[in-house]
Amino acid sequence: MRIVGIHRDGGGVQVAALSDDDTSVTVVTSVEEFWADAAGHLSREPRGETLVATDAEFVPPVLPGARVICIGLNYLKHVAEGSFRDQEVPAYPTLFARWTQSLTVDGAQVPVPADEDGLDWEGEVVAYVGSTLVDATPDEALAAVVGYSTFNDLTSRRAQKLTSQWILGKNGDRSGPLGPLVPAAEVGDLRDGLRVQTRVNGETVQDGRTDEMVYTVGDTLSLISRTFTLRPGDLLATGTPSGVGYARTPPWLLEPGDVVEVEIEKLGVLTNTVVGNEVGRGR
Amino acid sequence: MRIVGIHRDGGGVQVAALSDDDTSVTVVTSVEEFWADAAGHLSREPRGETLVATDAEFVPPVLPGARVICIGLNYLKHVAEGSFRDQEVPAYPTLFARWTQSLTVDGAQVPVPADEDGLDWEGEVVAYVGSTLVDATPDEALAAVVGYSTFNDLTSRRAQKLTSQWILGKNGDRSGPLGPLVPAAEVGDLRDGLRVQTRVNGETVQDGRTDEMVYTVGDTLSLISRTFTLRPGDLLATGTPSGVGYARTPPWLLEPGDVVEVEIEKLGVLTNTVVGNEVGRGR
Repeated sequence: MRIVGIHRDGGGVQVAALSDDDTSVTVVTSVEEFWADAAGHLSREPRGETLVATDAEFVPPVLPGARVICIGLNYLKHVAEGSFRDQEVPAYPTLFARWTQSLTVDGAQVPVPADEDGLDWEGEVVAYVGSTLVDATPDEALAAVVGYSTFNDLTSRRAQKLTSQWILGKNGDRSGPLGPLVPAAEVGDLRDGLRVQTRVNGETVQDGRTDEMVYTVGDTLSLISRTFTLRPGDLLATGTPSGVGYARTPPWLLEPGDVVEVEIEKLGVLTNTVVGNEVGRGR
Repeated sequence: MRIVGIHRDGGGVQVAALSDDDTSVTVVTSVEEFWADAAGHLSREPRGETLVATDAEFVPPVLPGARVICIGLNYLKHVAEGSFRDQEVPAYPTLFARWTQSLTVDGAQVPVPADEDGLDWEGEVVAYVGSTLVDATPDEALAAVVGYSTFNDLTSRRAQKLTSQWILGKNGDRSGPLGPLVPAAEVGDLRDGLRVQTRVNGETVQDGRTDEMVYTVGDTLSLISRTFTLRPGDLLATGTPSGVGYARTPPWLLEPGDVVEVEIEKLGVLTNTVVGNEVGRGR
């Protein structure tokens, strides 16, 4: 099952199951009702209306107030290629924030902001929290994960590096494309290793496996839950493997017209096109 | 006029004007309608139902998907007292993120998370964005600000300092108390200097003025708008003056039972009580 968000004129966001051939969607329920019992909804066949896919606008199946918590350095080879290569690997996951307003979907056009030379790619897996977690153990936290998606943490490197804190460069308009949610029961454990690949105009630029992660999903959510209460619908972006563009010699960034794909085993392919600031901002 | 959010059983969040004596509120409209035309609503007397204040739950007058963008180092004396004192003052504002789920209101109890020795205070002014900003000039950005509030950026210092990125320690449950919104027309320009004081159990611990800020509201919002589109309802927390607790010798942190107040000229007094993890988390 692949779960998407849809939006139709005059209504709120609904959650729906995408057909195997991508041509239709079957409504599950509203996004608020879905996250009130995500595990329950994912365990049943959807029974709502079926629509032709082109009759709906696709949006992330995410609550507006959800937190998108991102791990910055989670693959050793990515640590080794970047700005933090001369420092010890931190004992704790490096966490930064996206707001849901930066999220978008498969197929969306992503603008390069005015002051950037391009956008950098960061293919990765997102995990969705399905229940409330307060001071949870790693096992409890992992058991609360109800699904996973492909994700591209498209980054405005200049804005990211203006100061010590990264969030400006991590929240560009539509810079967080998110693929359909696949139920955790169909995905298994990321520690068993899912291949994560990123391609730019067909050329493979990242090729890692999720069993290379330094900080597991369970450990990371457990740590977070000791400071703030995780709620159903919160997202954890698990970090990107090596091969990003800014660390290359010469640097390689996505420019208008480029097509970037993130392909993750069991989760599918997420494809987006980059556009210019003048056509892509403010929408 | 002082604008608050209210919530009643079975309904969504509404925006309301608080009476001068704090005993009643007069409804303006839903929080969604308010932010669709904040400047318009703030220019008119509210005409909705009037309720006894105790008949409503007070909540922040904020959209769930709003971005709470925070300036980390904006007063030179605060830079000089903290972890960044040996580095040059950055050329750009250091921006970090809160999610709206961390926000609360005047009077709320704020828990100390499990792994913290206490919470640190950071009294400051929040500015509210009232219209869409894409690649805006500083003047355009400042003109889009429709109101200001008192704010206490209560910080879990241990979580903040676990890695290079601060956001875990900046998003504790109910760690962001926000006072009523006061229309910008009644406040004037922060560059003219509003006094910002923080008190702990009656003792003054911070005493600064907003004309000491390094990065102005207009310049900061202009910079942000060059990476992502600011939307009506987004918030900018403008940074705290010197006098925080962790930088003292010995360090001084808020413990359960402590009362912390932020008083800002023209914006009022924001009062909160600190409680223990075991009673305050997960609500």
